[in-house]
Amino acid sequence: MKLASLKHGRDGRLVVVSKDLTRATDAFFIAPTLQAALDDWERLAPRLADLAEQLEHGSVPAFRFHEHDCAAPLPRAFQWADGSAYVNHVALVRQARGAEMPASFWEDPLMYQGGSDALLGPREAIVAADEASGIDFEAEVAVVTGDVPMGSDAAAARGLIRLVMLANDVSLRALVPGELAKGFGFFQSKPSSAFSPVAVTPDELGPAWDGARLHLALSSYVNGKAFGSPDAGEDMTFDFPTLIAHAAKTRRLGAGTIIGSGTVSNRDADGGPGRPVADGGRGYSCIAEQRMVETILRGEAHTPFLRFGDTVRIEMRDAAGHSIFGAIEQEVRAPD
Amino acid sequence: MKLASLKHGRDGRLVVVSKDLTRATDAFFIAPTLQAALDDWERLAPRLADLAEQLEHGSVPAFRFHEHDCAAPLPRAFQWADGSAYVNHVALVRQARGAEMPASFWEDPLMYQGGSDALLGPREAIVAADEASGIDFEAEVAVVTGDVPMGSDAAAARGLIRLVMLANDVSLRALVPGELAKGFGFFQSKPSSAFSPVAVTPDELGPAWDGARLHLALSSYVNGKAFGSPDAGEDMTFDFPTLIAHAAKTRRLGAGTIIGSGTVSNRDADGGPGRPVADGGRGYSCIAEQRMVETILRGEAHTPFLRFGDTVRIEMRDAAGHSIFGAIEQEVRAPD
Repeated sequence: MKLASLKHGRDGRLVVVSKDLTRATDAFFIAPTLQAALDDWERLAPRLADLAEQLEHGSVPAFRFHEHDCAAPLPRAFQWADGSAYVNHVALVRQARGAEMPASFWEDPLMYQGGSDALLGPREAIVAADEASGIDFEAEVAVVTGDVPMGSDAAAARGLIRLVMLANDVSLRALVPGELAKGFGFFQSKPSSAFSPVAVTPDELGPAWDGARLHLALSSYVNGKAFGSPDAGEDMTFDFPTLIAHAAKTRRLGAGTIIGSGTVSNRDADGGPGRPVADGGRGYSCIAEQRMVETILRGEAHTPFLRFGDTVRIEMRDAAGHSIFGAIEQEVRAPD
Repeated sequence: MKLASLKHGRDGRLVVVSKDLTRATDAFFIAPTLQAALDDWERLAPRLADLAEQLEHGSVPAFRFHEHDCAAPLPRAFQWADGSAYVNHVALVRQARGAEMPASFWEDPLMYQGGSDALLGPREAIVAADEASGIDFEAEVAVVTGDVPMGSDAAAARGLIRLVMLANDVSLRALVPGELAKGFGFFQSKPSSAFSPVAVTPDELGPAWDGARLHLALSSYVNGKAFGSPDAGEDMTFDFPTLIAHAAKTRRLGAGTIIGSGTVSNRDADGGPGRPVADGGRGYSCIAEQRMVETILRGEAHTPFLRFGDTVRIEMRDAAGHSIFGAIEQEVRAPD
């Protein structure tokens, strides 16, 4: 099934959305919010699934679904932990800022604790005080978990993935080196992340979901031009169950925990950093990575970071070309 | 007024507690949970304050208040961001692990994003898989904010402090160097934090609260023996409004955001690192700091980190000797 939270109060109003994203029906009588559904998933998910089936059959009242009416599926969450599962991306970004990457990064997942109190809906603007802060997007796949007991291994974590969605982990590149040098991780350099209109249960993904990775291209566009379309199933060094187990190593994870994949990134067949879309390559899921590759290929970065008025679009299509999660489409702007 | 969340479901049940912590009355009819009260604070706080006054006068039904019935005031929160406002502590801990401390640490607050999906009540055990992970407590003061607009300065943040409470920011010292070396901050090295039974509005603190700092000793005990009692109002390089403004620099903070002070730590009058309680000093608010001082004074650390069966107690008393927030008292144990 496909679930969305229409803008309403602080936590949105839960609706079930048709597979083709054209219609929705109110799920309020089952659970007022997505968090409430996740809190009691074993009992409520079957009822939501029934409602989804009735919606497909046209046997319940439905209304037109508009992606721009959506808040994030979880407009505020109790946890947003973002991995860096595509180690290729980490290696390039590190190279871009002249930092060494330890070999252990290929074995021990990188993960940071993100702010989850104010997540952005798919059409909400990226508001930044200063264009010079190096405003960048990061296109990612994210999962939402149930309750994960402390010490769960990857095999156990696999069965606790409730939902899959897309994320834009907005980053302020100019603030990253200073914050990482302080040693406490990202804070100001990671403003609010945005999420796709719709979160879907893994069964909606068919064979593209293997229980651990999502094998489809994740497409990003800047100002309407294709920027990248790497396959989220390739080069994902750490799969979602591994990321969840990493997060649950020393504490339990509450239901509704969002775990991000990190910026989706593919290597070339020869292990190289790929090519920009303009050069016939698959491109990238963030600007920083393309700038790095430009530096490698041409000695200098040409692509600017985002400016006020720019738009970023992130979307994933199934084998038939249909949007699965709806699109994240955000304009960058200065504060009011 | 003093507020607590009795254990009930995932978010507790809101009660108003008498100033002397002996009695409580149900606040469910005003707001079912503390988060719900914070979400609509302007409207609900006056009603809660009325109820608190009626409780003091004995004019509402009350029941005996037991600290061990409490969950954390926010059993799960949308944000827990912990500063390191006592830079003295940071300097000593860095020295302890052989890491340099940049001079900028005295001007730019350190803050990390903590996990907030599973916060511990005041009597809940610290569960750790391995004694060798260097289990430590960190006694802190924490505030809970209302909605803080992005870019708020310290002056604006001052008026957005809703509640004050105590925290134990549990740390696994042996995991810290490896995680900080990865550059993404703490994750596995910071298991669930615990909070005091009661959160209080700033007006409850009288002259001890100057709008930015809490000028009272924060007492910690290990296995019933005094471990530290530094003054939380002294040597706090960054006050709470400054910490909140730091957190809100590039994104808004949602109502119910918890901001921690970091480990409370005092310098000697001569600028030195103080002395352990056993040597007649004020002692420390975490074991790591005492170990560092032992190394400086005696060439070697003697105090072990916490072991299974050990207990930590954290409490703050007012000028008359009465406990303000109730006590955090946690046993350390292995997983079931």
